[in-house]
Amino acid sequence: MSGGPDVVTLGEAMLRLSPPDHQRLEQSTSLDVNVGGAELSVAIGVARLGLRSAWVTKLPKTPLGRIIANHARAMEVDVSKIVWTDERRVGLYFLEFGAAPRPSSVIYDRKDSAASNLKPGDVDWKFLKGVKLFHISGITPALSETNRETTLHALKQAKRWGCRVSFDVNYRSKLWSPSEAELACTPIAKMADILIASDASSIWNVDKEPERMVKALKKKLGVPLVVTTKRADDGTFRSRISSIAVSDKRYESSRPYDVEVVDRLGTGDSFAAGFIYGYLTGGVQRGLDYGDAMAAFKVSTPGDSNYATKDEIDRLLASGPNLRIQR
Amino acid sequence: MSGGPDVVTLGEAMLRLSPPDHQRLEQSTSLDVNVGGAELSVAIGVARLGLRSAWVTKLPKTPLGRIIANHARAMEVDVSKIVWTDERRVGLYFLEFGAAPRPSSVIYDRKDSAASNLKPGDVDWKFLKGVKLFHISGITPALSETNRETTLHALKQAKRWGCRVSFDVNYRSKLWSPSEAELACTPIAKMADILIASDASSIWNVDKEPERMVKALKKKLGVPLVVTTKRADDGTFRSRISSIAVSDKRYESSRPYDVEVVDRLGTGDSFAAGFIYGYLTGGVQRGLDYGDAMAAFKVSTPGDSNYATKDEIDRLLASGPNLRIQR
Amino acid sequence: MSGGPDVVTLGEAMLRLSPPDHQRLEQSTSLDVNVGGAELSVAIGVARLGLRSAWVTKLPKTPLGRIIANHARAMEVDVSKIVWTDERRVGLYFLEFGAAPRPSSVIYDRKDSAASNLKPGDVDWKFLKGVKLFHISGITPALSETNRETTLHALKQAKRWGCRVSFDVNYRSKLWSPSEAELACTPIAKMADILIASDASSIWNVDKEPERMVKALKKKLGVPLVVTTKRADDGTFRSRISSIAVSDKRYESSRPYDVEVVDRLGTGDSFAAGFIYGYLTGGVQRGLDYGDAMAAFKVSTPGDSNYATKDEIDRLLASGPNLRIQR
Amino acid sequence: MSGGPDVVTLGEAMLRLSPPDHQRLEQSTSLDVNVGGAELSVAIGVARLGLRSAWVTKLPKTPLGRIIANHARAMEVDVSKIVWTDERRVGLYFLEFGAAPRPSSVIYDRKDSAASNLKPGDVDWKFLKGVKLFHISGITPALSETNRETTLHALKQAKRWGCRVSFDVNYRSKLWSPSEAELACTPIAKMADILIASDASSIWNVDKEPERMVKALKKKLGVPLVVTTKRADDGTFRSRISSIAVSDKRYESSRPYDVEVVDRLGTGDSFAAGFIYGYLTGGVQRGLDYGDAMAAFKVSTPGDSNYATKDEIDRLLASGPNLRIQR
Amino acid sequence: MSGGPDVVTLGEAMLRLSPPDHQRLEQSTSLDVNVGGAELSVAIGVARLGLRSAWVTKLPKTPLGRIIANHARAMEVDVSKIVWTDERRVGLYFLEFGAAPRPSSVIYDRKDSAASNLKPGDVDWKFLKGVKLFHISGITPALSETNRETTLHALKQAKRWGCRVSFDVNYRSKLWSPSEAELACTPIAKMADILIASDASSIWNVDKEPERMVKALKKKLGVPLVVTTKRADDGTFRSRISSIAVSDKRYESSRPYDVEVVDRLGTGDSFAAGFIYGYLTGGVQRGLDYGDAMAAFKVSTPGDSNYATKDEIDRLLASGPNLRIQR
Amino acid sequence: MSGGPDVVTLGEAMLRLSPPDHQRLEQSTSLDVNVGGAELSVAIGVARLGLRSAWVTKLPKTPLGRIIANHARAMEVDVSKIVWTDERRVGLYFLEFGAAPRPSSVIYDRKDSAASNLKPGDVDWKFLKGVKLFHISGITPALSETNRETTLHALKQAKRWGCRVSFDVNYRSKLWSPSEAELACTPIAKMADILIASDASSIWNVDKEPERMVKALKKKLGVPLVVTTKRADDGTFRSRISSIAVSDKRYESSRPYDVEVVDRLGTGDSFAAGFIYGYLTGGVQRGLDYGDAMAAFKVSTPGDSNYATKDEIDRLLASGPNLRIQR
Repeated sequence: MSGGPDVVTLGEAMLRLSPPDHQRLEQSTSLDVNVGGAELSVAIGVARLGLRSAWVTKLPKTPLGRIIANHARAMEVDVSKIVWTDERRVGLYFLEFGAAPRPSSVIYDRKDSAASNLKPGDVDWKFLKGVKLFHISGITPALSETNRETTLHALKQAKRWGCRVSFDVNYRSKLWSPSEAELACTPIAKMADILIASDASSIWNVDKEPERMVKALKKKLGVPLVVTTKRADDGTFRSRISSIAVSDKRYESSRPYDVEVVDRLGTGDSFAAGFIYGYLTGGVQRGLDYGDAMAAFKVSTPGDSNYATKDEIDRLLASGPNLRIQR
Repeated sequence: MSGGPDVVTLGEAMLRLSPPDHQRLEQSTSLDVNVGGAELSVAIGVARLGLRSAWVTKLPKTPLGRIIANHARAMEVDVSKIVWTDERRVGLYFLEFGAAPRPSSVIYDRKDSAASNLKPGDVDWKFLKGVKLFHISGITPALSETNRETTLHALKQAKRWGCRVSFDVNYRSKLWSPSEAELACTPIAKMADILIASDASSIWNVDKEPERMVKALKKKLGVPLVVTTKRADDGTFRSRISSIAVSDKRYESSRPYDVEVVDRLGTGDSFAAGFIYGYLTGGVQRGLDYGDAMAAFKVSTPGDSNYATKDEIDRLLASGPNLRIQR
Repeated sequence: MSGGPDVVTLGEAMLRLSPPDHQRLEQSTSLDVNVGGAELSVAIGVARLGLRSAWVTKLPKTPLGRIIANHARAMEVDVSKIVWTDERRVGLYFLEFGAAPRPSSVIYDRKDSAASNLKPGDVDWKFLKGVKLFHISGITPALSETNRETTLHALKQAKRWGCRVSFDVNYRSKLWSPSEAELACTPIAKMADILIASDASSIWNVDKEPERMVKALKKKLGVPLVVTTKRADDGTFRSRISSIAVSDKRYESSRPYDVEVVDRLGTGDSFAAGFIYGYLTGGVQRGLDYGDAMAAFKVSTPGDSNYATKDEIDRLLASGPNLRIQR
Repeated sequence: MSGGPDVVTLGEAMLRLSPPDHQRLEQSTSLDVNVGGAELSVAIGVARLGLRSAWVTKLPKTPLGRIIANHARAMEVDVSKIVWTDERRVGLYFLEFGAAPRPSSVIYDRKDSAASNLKPGDVDWKFLKGVKLFHISGITPALSETNRETTLHALKQAKRWGCRVSFDVNYRSKLWSPSEAELACTPIAKMADILIASDASSIWNVDKEPERMVKALKKKLGVPLVVTTKRADDGTFRSRISSIAVSDKRYESSRPYDVEVVDRLGTGDSFAAGFIYGYLTGGVQRGLDYGDAMAAFKVSTPGDSNYATKDEIDRLLASGPNLRIQR
Repeated sequence: MSGGPDVVTLGEAMLRLSPPDHQRLEQSTSLDVNVGGAELSVAIGVARLGLRSAWVTKLPKTPLGRIIANHARAMEVDVSKIVWTDERRVGLYFLEFGAAPRPSSVIYDRKDSAASNLKPGDVDWKFLKGVKLFHISGITPALSETNRETTLHALKQAKRWGCRVSFDVNYRSKLWSPSEAELACTPIAKMADILIASDASSIWNVDKEPERMVKALKKKLGVPLVVTTKRADDGTFRSRISSIAVSDKRYESSRPYDVEVVDRLGTGDSFAAGFIYGYLTGGVQRGLDYGDAMAAFKVSTPGDSNYATKDEIDRLLASGPNLRIQR
Repeated sequence: MSGGPDVVTLGEAMLRLSPPDHQRLEQSTSLDVNVGGAELSVAIGVARLGLRSAWVTKLPKTPLGRIIANHARAMEVDVSKIVWTDERRVGLYFLEFGAAPRPSSVIYDRKDSAASNLKPGDVDWKFLKGVKLFHISGITPALSETNRETTLHALKQAKRWGCRVSFDVNYRSKLWSPSEAELACTPIAKMADILIASDASSIWNVDKEPERMVKALKKKLGVPLVVTTKRADDGTFRSRISSIAVSDKRYESSRPYDVEVVDRLGTGDSFAAGFIYGYLTGGVQRGLDYGDAMAAFKVSTPGDSNYATKDEIDRLLASGPNLRIQR
């Protein structure tokens, strides 16, 4: 890969440990290992679609740190901006897959991670020159005071070097309260060109209904473009996925997808990746279309990362779902 | 755990051996091991909800016997009343998970088990003093003449020591005929304070429709309280669960649950455990509500045992199902 | 098994390698091994229903070749007509299981297989004497020029020795184009007593709607009996299965099956096996009924082979689906 | 396979259930499934070497019974003499793999099995006509009074129809005492042409040292040919295998094998199979050589059955072990 | 279990996560889950041998905390003294199994665990009344300042209530330096009745050779009884285990064990458990003998916990290793 | 990674499919997936040691092709020179792990692979400018006439651009005969600066004894430096590894390694990688030392790729093996 990255994301990735076969953690004698983290998942999605992406984080020099970097590299993400350290640990999260009426559940074990200690000065930000878009999520500032500073610093650098900025709110109630989140996320949102408003309503206390939410957020925060996914669940194994955006005009995804859910984790990040790809290569409508197709594809596969190929997504967009086995 | 048990159950537990991934037994090269048995499952459910429970059975002094006792102990069941023996074997059952139009199927291999040889004199029953409820199912008297005697003897002792008695009919057509079951179960039912009428209609030849069944059984057998679950299946992977009870008045569960079925085994026992817990701590309506919540939770997890926590069940009862991933 | 086979099939079987748990091939570190091949699956289905079946193919003398022959033998198929060779390889196919909107997908790796090199003279065809039905599919002539000749030669021999002939079109777009298929399949179809028209519409450019398709094909090709399955999918995990036949009169299956799909591969072959069994033991209507029951049963189990027993199919036909767990 | 069998064996096969990875049964949440049984293993070994073998037993018409028959069939054993029944169960054994100083351990759960109820009249023994050798082990008469009668009856029939008889003592202390075994095995041994004296010393109270044992047994029981394996263990993972025979002269295996033990179960049966093959095709010395090669090969693979090919054994005999990877 | 515990241990247990099949962490897509922790392993070993044991620790109220408590309970350890908390996390350790020349390797991820926050006042220590022996290891004071205080406080309480005290040094170089360890462990050792000197030489800068080490430590620290294991490794898969003790006289284990190593973790704790059992029921020599037998048995099984039964250990002591398969 | 590669290798990589737990292929229902190929393994080893490496090959645009590229990328190999194609297939090899007396065994299924169709003109070779060493093995010219031409063309280019050349003979008897190999390999060897003479004796008909072999080859082929590994096996699970080199002087590795063999595949390639690293950073003696350490480390882990870190190898070289668990 010659030339610098098109898209840069910044944030923490964790090892995800999950019992197989819908077991509870208390029942299980082995755990499946995946790599998960919102901003890494976005970088992966963007790379699978053919743009060059880089991911900024901090990792300890341990086998666990290498698992994460190896995965990013395998998925064609530029890992040359990872900061390696002898200190701290790799964050973990334990995931139980639910079935109605039992929801899926996450136990975070990410305190004191190396990533949450990434400092503004750890990175020489001038590599952002030439980068088209810088992407960040609301998880990073939730992790530590240090990360809050790094987020703001990185955003200023991105602006300075002329990158567009997308911000996925990604509110996590296990990490902070809505009011803490509001305090930290409002200045970030105001610097963003694109606000992806997943789980954002409780932070700014706006209506949950997607269309009203994006409009309210656009008004309240003054972001040029606000985007969100819409989702209608039928239990935990079936859902309908679509999306909506407002800027000066209103956009809606061309086709909602009826999906069978193998693993919901990383769906929002796949949407973000697809949206960024589509937006950068053709604008908002194309962004929604790629975002939905990527999100719909993601839920059909296990793990946080999206293993779709560009061809598969293009075929899905061109012809719609075709569930006949291909042979 | 100080003090004696609140609830005592009596019966056989088996090793359950099942092929993974919906394989047929003929296809499989490995079998998943679980511990299953109606009365042990009830004792476990009661213990998970915070009451003290003990389980009476007979087990051989072998690794297989220890698997069962270890599991009961892990699940906080008092195993001090287990009778250990050098004779006979551990009962087994082989389970194939079905998918429409193929039903799940059980092969019992429990003949000559140690548990089916539990005798009236094997246990010093005066430990029942102070116990609030003694629970038995129709499976035990189906296993052997000896177990029939033990069941009746234990019931008399329970009555003598002032325990309330619940009896879950649990008719199993692979163990005996309806007329054999009627002969053995009628005197048991007549001693019960609570009759849980699962699969009971064919024994006493009453209407299968739940409401008419419980009323007919109440009348026919003179039990103060008759309870049953209601269930509407949509294939093998989806169902709706609720329940009904009649005593001097008629009760109905507050909320039916739409469930996605991971493993249906042990659902009735989870209902019984929830009902017993709710009934002992607040009466019939609370019994139905806890029973349904426990049953609905159970089907979402693999194995016969219920790994719900009291907190999870209380949250389900307070707010209803919330299928959003918790993070 | 005394006496010669009732049914003989001819074709290639492959090792099927598939990632577990809906993983993509790129994600997986182990692959499940099954044996698959349309005509072997038919021979297996026929044998499970109690007729004697034999399967003709060519296999290399390697462990991989033996996996296939062992499986056929285990499933009670007569393997004495397999031609063993020191040359070439065993065909493989890689299978990814899909979930909406991602279809299941097959990568064939079967080029240069021993089976595709089966020659007319490799077999002494007079063993067909006394055989009731000879079954072939459109996959075999798609594999090689040699196989095309062998197919025609075998059909002529079958006719000579008085076998009825069934031909399942089984069009595979990854093997050849519709026009190539038309050229090769038309003479075969014209020799057939029974045409099973799965995926056949594109070859002869007729209407896709099943009823119109079978009528058009009957007319166009002059086959005495044309049969096809009908299927209505609700995502990849649910479907409705039925079938239809036309000869001088029109037949329709007695009962459509609502199925939960564990593994769709081999469904058409199970229909063919059931149809052949029913047809040979009672005529067209019985053929459709056994065909649908076998197909519906197959989708509920993993792998290409049908592990139903005759008893299970008879019970399904007699009473319809009963999804209560059998215990 | 045309023509009748060359070798016939009679006895019980069980499902073997064993925890993976040297776990104890108490630790394991899944069990590997294999098929094991001394006489079936002998029939399989003989078939792998290219002779025709048949196996006589009684199996219940259940999926578990079919697992066993399918395996025998896959391994090219003629299963047409299996007696199928609606009664009783499939025998099981649970196997823990040891490591020094912990021995491997077996829990038999085979009481009341269908096989142990095989009766003299269940089989029409005239199929023994033309059979070269009838093989039986000391396990069968240990299982039940009925089996003792069947063994004697079958032996008489074998003699009547001109079969040579081999008898592998296979003393199992968990099934009977030495004195019970002596009572039952002495008349059997006296009818045998070949006595394979594995674990036989305690029954007839002779010296354990192999050479002295075979000589003492030959004298005591008057068997024309007495054979035994010799084995020197270095822990549980390494061993040295050889064998010895006495008739009118003394034979010793041409080459001892230093083996790495993957799974010791079935080693004696593989020796017996190899010996029978070699003996029938060339005499005692060839018998010992094939017996040792088969035994040595067996311990290098998991499961009771021997998956060697004739070619592999011939190569081992011709050139000795060559541990360089073959590529 | 009536009456209080005979033996009480105090310390942290962790979830142990290890790749299967000698994989490196970087290679693995699933991790086996075990429960490990020196003092819990001792409590388990003591309970398996038939004494009553209790274990003191602090655990978070999460599924991960429950995994640990469930395991302790299953293994018959009294868990009523566990302090449950809403704060902090469960400690983890990642384990790679080595093969020469690659050593096994541990990555601790236990910082900030609930157990390392166990405070002197969290427990009402008067339950130590009647307890025969209180056991602690050098790992606990290594974990935190708080744990150092708790260790000392608990020891004083143990002394006050008349318990004998055993102290297993268990030096872990990944937790602290020798000089830090010396500072903390010297006062603990001086309060101990029994010092188990595993990996102790570097702390007090004495000779590594076992006999000289125990003598030097006895002299230096004035402990009445100093014990240590001796071990001679032949690669990572074979070892010889024995032990030695000095008090006023010198003891040596009656029999060294040649062991095949399945999993070395927990061996020292099994020795300690065996020693404590033997010592309490018969003195030092019996202690060494039970200690070695338990240690030797442990290495033959996976996981940190010892699944031996009292019968198996007694048989090993009575007759020495017998590696013939038991059947 | 900035700057071009230090080391470039060229050749085919395959998917390696192997049954777990020493099963035979005939027994197994799942296959472990690894990526293997001599020259890729060398590139990986070099990259793990900290040099920049690139790998040249041809891969089909399929999930199977991507598995290989993903793995190379994860292991830090520069994949920008891979030629992607719509034609042909990914080569496979099936691997059975042996145990004495059964050797491990490989079934190649690599005919018609995309890699074997890599043509001289597929690559713009001027990227070799600045590369320090170009590595090739004798497997590539064995695969096809096309590959033979490509090998020679690439070597000429390497020479032109000033790269040193290493050639690992890697004779594979399943790919070609010694005389075919001699014809093709002699001109290649004559262009090499370093000849790694693994399995080379039969090609040039020289003495097998390592020291005599390298001397004879040096003389016969005129290569400046000839290197080979020495290995003494004790069964399949233990071995001793060392090496030797001759140029104008004779070198021998500083320390032989006694290794426990988890997986022998890729050992020679790890030696080559270590040798190349050591040679490029310090000369022949350092080459042998790094080569042996890498080889010894490799056999302790599963898969063809070496997951050692530079730190681990340096520690092994500095202090020799230390088998105490690190904690």
